[in-house]
Amino acid sequence: MPGLLIIAHAPLATALRDCASHVYAGCPQKLLAFDVAPDAPVDDAATAALALLRDAASDGSALLLVDVFGATPSNIAQRLAERASDLKLKIVAGVNLPMLLRAVCYQNESLDALAARATAGAIQGVMQVAINPPQQQTLRGPSHAAALNSGQQ
Amino acid sequence: MPGLLIIAHAPLATALRDCASHVYAGCPQKLLAFDVAPDAPVDDAATAALALLRDAASDGSALLLVDVFGATPSNIAQRLAERASDLKLKIVAGVNLPMLLRAVCYQNESLDALAARATAGAIQGVMQVAINPPQQQTLRGPSHAAALNSGQQ
Repeated sequence: MPGLLIIAHAPLATALRDCASHVYAGCPQKLLAFDVAPDAPVDDAATAALALLRDAASDGSALLLVDVFGATPSNIAQRLAERASDLKLKIVAGVNLPMLLRAVCYQNESLDALAARATAGAIQGVMQVAINPPQQQTLRGPSHAAALNSGQQ
Repeated sequence: MPGLLIIAHAPLATALRDCASHVYAGCPQKLLAFDVAPDAPVDDAATAALALLRDAASDGSALLLVDVFGATPSNIAQRLAERASDLKLKIVAGVNLPMLLRAVCYQNESLDALAARATAGAIQGVMQVAINPPQQQTLRGPSHAAALNSGQQ
């Protein structure tokens, strides 16, 4: 099973892992996080993250989830992949909670499939959310408002 | 100028705001965060977040960035919008760092334009990142590797 390693500006990586732990009531298997301190040199951070990557990729593969393409965490992920060329790795950028939850759900799939699931999950999770106009609720009366409230909790 | 209020599972909202502060070397204007504790009741959390929303929307409008559509933070945002119907609000889900950075960059635009910028930025930020095959760097010699390294830091 591919491992999952989140690499992001501090403290985003840990925060995302914590959120996955909330949703799944306990930390999912092989989900690790590496927070990148502001102005951390890429090579030093890659050295520090290498043991974590090898832990995540104990089965030989891992998906690296980074926050922004081109920023230091993304560069660290690329440096890690160069150094750990014996592992099968993929990197996806733009991690959000929908991406992470999708990746955890499909972690038993192949690395290629998992990377595709993660990117699709992230994009599908981005949307504008409708706001119910208050006058509409008033017009429909209290029974509708009660149903709406119970459905939203 | 529309305010920005991130509402997400704890501690993701604060973590995202901290990351924006790293990138912009100081907290951007009118960027607030509300972390939702696990199992927080929607109504109680909306009551607690209302003052924060009014602070963010001191000019009369705000964009609410939530982590996952349909989860408690998203429901809190919808409840807030129902309660603060005197404000002009929009909600976007699937917040990632590219969405947040785009929103901060274009915060001086109208609320409608800002919501469109935020969703586009989030989606454009999701991608698979290429991994340089190590043998290719060796073939191209040390000068290429040096250029690659300097470009990635």
